[in-house]
Amino acid sequence: MSVYLDNAATSFPKPEVVYRAVDEFMRKIGVNAGRGAYRQALEADKIIYETRRNLAKLFNVKDVTRIIFTFNITDSINLALKGLLKSGDHVITSSMEHNAVWRPLKTIEKERGVSITAIPCDSNGVLDPQKVQDAITKRTKLIVLTHASNVTGTVMPIQDVGAVARENNVWFLVDAAQTAGLYPLDVEAMNIDLLAFTGHKGLMGPMGTGGLYIREGISIKPLREGGTGGDSILEYQPEFLPDRYEAGTPNVSGIAGLGAAVKFILNEGIEEIHKKETVLTNYALRKLSEIDKVKIYGPQSIIGRVGVISLNIGNLNPQKVGYTLDEKYGVMVRTGLHCAPCAHRTIGTINSGTIRIGLGYFNTEKDIDVFIDAIKDILNFV
Amino acid sequence: MSVYLDNAATSFPKPEVVYRAVDEFMRKIGVNAGRGAYRQALEADKIIYETRRNLAKLFNVKDVTRIIFTFNITDSINLALKGLLKSGDHVITSSMEHNAVWRPLKTIEKERGVSITAIPCDSNGVLDPQKVQDAITKRTKLIVLTHASNVTGTVMPIQDVGAVARENNVWFLVDAAQTAGLYPLDVEAMNIDLLAFTGHKGLMGPMGTGGLYIREGISIKPLREGGTGGDSILEYQPEFLPDRYEAGTPNVSGIAGLGAAVKFILNEGIEEIHKKETVLTNYALRKLSEIDKVKIYGPQSIIGRVGVISLNIGNLNPQKVGYTLDEKYGVMVRTGLHCAPCAHRTIGTINSGTIRIGLGYFNTEKDIDVFIDAIKDILNFV
Repeated sequence: MSVYLDNAATSFPKPEVVYRAVDEFMRKIGVNAGRGAYRQALEADKIIYETRRNLAKLFNVKDVTRIIFTFNITDSINLALKGLLKSGDHVITSSMEHNAVWRPLKTIEKERGVSITAIPCDSNGVLDPQKVQDAITKRTKLIVLTHASNVTGTVMPIQDVGAVARENNVWFLVDAAQTAGLYPLDVEAMNIDLLAFTGHKGLMGPMGTGGLYIREGISIKPLREGGTGGDSILEYQPEFLPDRYEAGTPNVSGIAGLGAAVKFILNEGIEEIHKKETVLTNYALRKLSEIDKVKIYGPQSIIGRVGVISLNIGNLNPQKVGYTLDEKYGVMVRTGLHCAPCAHRTIGTINSGTIRIGLGYFNTEKDIDVFIDAIKDILNFV
Repeated sequence: MSVYLDNAATSFPKPEVVYRAVDEFMRKIGVNAGRGAYRQALEADKIIYETRRNLAKLFNVKDVTRIIFTFNITDSINLALKGLLKSGDHVITSSMEHNAVWRPLKTIEKERGVSITAIPCDSNGVLDPQKVQDAITKRTKLIVLTHASNVTGTVMPIQDVGAVARENNVWFLVDAAQTAGLYPLDVEAMNIDLLAFTGHKGLMGPMGTGGLYIREGISIKPLREGGTGGDSILEYQPEFLPDRYEAGTPNVSGIAGLGAAVKFILNEGIEEIHKKETVLTNYALRKLSEIDKVKIYGPQSIIGRVGVISLNIGNLNPQKVGYTLDEKYGVMVRTGLHCAPCAHRTIGTINSGTIRIGLGYFNTEKDIDVFIDAIKDILNFV
């Protein structure tokens, strides 16, 4: 028996309806969307529309067309950052960001002369919104922030930072890689102008799906131009959404799976899912805290965090522990820097990283027990 | 019974092995690639590697790492054009290009001051390679050309243009959307420096897959930066391939399906597939030419074309014909401009476009007969 605890990278398994939606689309519909007028093509259009509509419902987006589909959340974030920031602009971010935010920012800094302020978070990854307010200058165009750290699980004060952004007429981009589908998200209540999400993590959809919500009034340059099915005669990308940002054939089978996943989430209820994840995370934290020599990073209790838990065991090398967990106990975790070196610098683990578990909707307390027993066993052999 | 003749947009159905590979990956492996050290993650890595290797075999690419995976061919072409062309550069293309080439070029022209020469093709979409030679200036950096028109099926003189490119020290980018998987492609023999391909057409894989072959020595700026699994500590994208261009979670289930498809193609043999398509295209052209009032665009015989056939019937509006074909006869075709207005200007159909059939590996002469009978029937009712 194996235990999968790497849901922060990709949720696995998916709900049965997701597998079926992908397979049925591929076998029975299978054609391109937005490009043909025959009925089968309209079926593909409908699947995309319904997925968009259900995502809009989940995130409280009023205008369905303001949600665009992308390749993955890295694609979404690159689109937002590169499409928005120009030479001379200032951008504020945190010291807990994933490379999907940090690397495009560093590239834009070098190439366009955009300046970056990365607000230092404390050693638990906690951000003080006042520091964001203090960092704002006349040139600040955008605040970009992860909703929850993919290293420590620390939840950022999105709503407060969103209020700061709004007061100062600055756009606010949220990287919801670790929260979409697991944590209630409301772009209105949380003052989010741009919401980047991926389909294959908490949203429980297939890989190769992601998206971006773009608030009306925000003008972003597309990352790619090309065919969109309609308005073929124009020499430039059409101006209206979602076509403006959806050049080329979309991943329709992926979107079909994502649609089924989002419907599943809406049926279960995001509050219920969040509660379940909270209970499980709490259980894991409690069990881990009972073991001497286990150091948990980020918030020690369930307050202010999601089900992504980074830890280290004594002085053991996390990679070696990860390898043993898989080889000997069938427990799959992530080890290392998790594509977020900034976060590891912040929490003091840049040298060898951490062991990370990412809890998912289908994990149980029994999975945690297997993991805890394995950790204890490994400690006994040291 | 329905007849699907829109394989130039998306091939359908796919080989059974493709459906199975996607479903099996999703159900049994399902995890992220390049990011975990546990065995299941290594399985995902292996699937990606094998797909890359088989594509390299199909295109005669020596160094497997020079093939990178993208979202779709539009993504590949945007990466190549935007990553390569700088202010002051000159680029040569043809008057038959898809919007996936033309729109990014127009955008770069406007934003960066890159200059474009679009070589006029004749009314059959045929390009004279001498005109490419004549258009080369000291500033020419790139020639970009479709391998076969997605409107007329006209095959471009890739090898000759490739030789021109090589002689003049100019890079050569080929858009193989209509040929990869259906037509023998050899990046060495054809002098191709950059080969853009999509997974969901002739290659018979799922949507949400595509790629780009990048010859060694060509430096392209990535379109997006982000996590790559390895080298997380770097603040910029790693320099080595394929990681440099593969930020973010790849569409692993899609790549699993593409891998099965490419294996299927290698087993059938690309020459055999090409022969089959040629025979079928020939049959369709002959049958169509026997009907008065049918006008076929592009080469009238099989010489110099692929199985994409544009036509019009008398003065009938192509959209209406397409609609009737679907509603009354269950025949799915594409109508309109097919995201390639330049090509329609070239062949004189910019006002209302054409009816287009795209033949695929699973089409039969019987499918053509159903289509031909429907056309005849429609003509009887006019």
